[in-house]
Amino acid sequence: MNQLRLDPLTGRWVVVNTDRAKRPRAFSPPVPVQADTSRPCPFCPGNEEATPPALETYGPEGHWSVRVVPNLYPAFEGDDPFVVTNRGPVFTQATAGGIHEVLILSPDHRAPWPLLDDDQTAMVMAAIRDRIDEHSNVPGLRYSQAILNAGREAGASVEHPHAQLLGMSFVPRELVEEQAGFARFASRCLLCTVADAEENVGYRVVYADDRVLVVCPFWSGVPYEMLLIPRNHGPHLHHSQPADLAAVGRAIKTVLGRLRDVVGDVAYNLVFHSAPYRAPEPYHWHVHILPKLTTIAGFELGTGVLINIVNPEQAAEELCVPGHHGAGAPVAAVATG
Amino acid sequence: MNQLRLDPLTGRWVVVNTDRAKRPRAFSPPVPVQADTSRPCPFCPGNEEATPPALETYGPEGHWSVRVVPNLYPAFEGDDPFVVTNRGPVFTQATAGGIHEVLILSPDHRAPWPLLDDDQTAMVMAAIRDRIDEHSNVPGLRYSQAILNAGREAGASVEHPHAQLLGMSFVPRELVEEQAGFARFASRCLLCTVADAEENVGYRVVYADDRVLVVCPFWSGVPYEMLLIPRNHGPHLHHSQPADLAAVGRAIKTVLGRLRDVVGDVAYNLVFHSAPYRAPEPYHWHVHILPKLTTIAGFELGTGVLINIVNPEQAAEELCVPGHHGAGAPVAAVATG
Repeated sequence: MNQLRLDPLTGRWVVVNTDRAKRPRAFSPPVPVQADTSRPCPFCPGNEEATPPALETYGPEGHWSVRVVPNLYPAFEGDDPFVVTNRGPVFTQATAGGIHEVLILSPDHRAPWPLLDDDQTAMVMAAIRDRIDEHSNVPGLRYSQAILNAGREAGASVEHPHAQLLGMSFVPRELVEEQAGFARFASRCLLCTVADAEENVGYRVVYADDRVLVVCPFWSGVPYEMLLIPRNHGPHLHHSQPADLAAVGRAIKTVLGRLRDVVGDVAYNLVFHSAPYRAPEPYHWHVHILPKLTTIAGFELGTGVLINIVNPEQAAEELCVPGHHGAGAPVAAVATG
Repeated sequence: MNQLRLDPLTGRWVVVNTDRAKRPRAFSPPVPVQADTSRPCPFCPGNEEATPPALETYGPEGHWSVRVVPNLYPAFEGDDPFVVTNRGPVFTQATAGGIHEVLILSPDHRAPWPLLDDDQTAMVMAAIRDRIDEHSNVPGLRYSQAILNAGREAGASVEHPHAQLLGMSFVPRELVEEQAGFARFASRCLLCTVADAEENVGYRVVYADDRVLVVCPFWSGVPYEMLLIPRNHGPHLHHSQPADLAAVGRAIKTVLGRLRDVVGDVAYNLVFHSAPYRAPEPYHWHVHILPKLTTIAGFELGTGVLINIVNPEQAAEELCVPGHHGAGAPVAAVATG
């Protein structure tokens, strides 16, 4: 069963997909479990038959470095067009065609993003670009969501480091809201302005090079949240230049390494936001880096308002990569502002 | 430090509140911890001096049954009016005055809502009503959010069963969205229509009496999600009749007991949604019951789209309270629809 259903209270779509209940550890157990060593890792070299055949591989002939496979438990599948059906006044449903892929970061089961070398992270970013580019040519698809869940608390169900790519037949709520944010800020690109403003104040900058800026944004909703902004303005990740993508891969590696140094081996989510393929609206692609240190509880669920117990000025001061810091104004300047 | 900051990408407010980092176990540890038995429970009888003085108590003279105290680590505090300040084009902040209270469900450390008797749950609901009524008379406040977090995975930081009441100086996003949902559905009340429609189809009804209906809503976003709808239409919980409130308290007790029978001792959040105090728009107060069985991961964070791996028809069939079931049409009728 795979169906979109509309919540008429909030206007949000929900995916009801009972096939995904068959995933390993679909329900978070109350106590974290040890890695299941009774079965071989489906993403390790030598176990390629545990996944569907690769859609794409990268690296030297005969030895893949990055491997993209269909997700065995897809949230979206098939080429159904997006057709909405009303079953009475309050029951609105739609088909949920689309694509759901897994991108295995490297052959190394023990190497998350911060432990990969620069060539490997460049290859990962190139693979993400290629997959989104491929999705953008599939009739009926409108948007690709690339994500990475690292650690059980962040929702990873397989330990071997991997990202996921979901090609969707509708533009999801969060993107629509961000597009509205860019549209409200009409005079200039919102994120170009944010990049300038954060560099101006300086003390929320975590990492900066000539192609990428990473900050703990002023409006951080979770402790140690980071926002990665490519300096070259462009709505689409899949239209970015190789050098920019390589720089993004390197910046992610660097700041995740800092996160580990400062906070420890915490779970986190990466969210790659790129404009819908054929969006005429202004947009600037970017990456949200969301450490999972706190729980989304009743207040956050009930109000949509996040409570962040670590101020981003403090977080940036701790995370800041030596040699990449901004102006370094004292944290108190904002804390008392 | 306690400050509202605006995310210009999504238009959402974030609360930056570093005082709350001082709470017991503010950061979710990667491994659940045992109850801290080295310190006495601040919510148990005899330890009243561990909290600020009670704002209200209920029950026989000298022996409280329900106790309401100020939260030691308030998310909102003080009578600052809601004043927005722009610090440049992308840094928008506001003061965050308000009220944050704890409502201790009963003197019994080991008795969550499903183990309370009907008199006690009626008293809890009356206390929630009284506090919201009190908030509604505080100048500058516009909305009260009542919630209950049960279990560590759902965000509870103190084990002794308690609810929380937050009086806010602005109407939060989720409420604005629900108000828009009611406004879109202009011909008749949206939730009265949902109640009729769910009773008509029957097979998502979990509990029904002459005052309350509980369903696994058609658009459930999480496994075993329930929606409690009081049958008497009214926008405001704090204007409800005692008999209706008592019936809601009893229904919550019954369905949480069923949840425990069916799924086990899982964490959950209760969200009480009542209209902003002086809202002219149509609304119908209700309670969201949100078991915490799965993790909000990168896809959900990045898109705002929930993936529910248990279809609500199946959930309702399992949860359904004997003698309270609806029409009982076969699950397959929808699963194949």
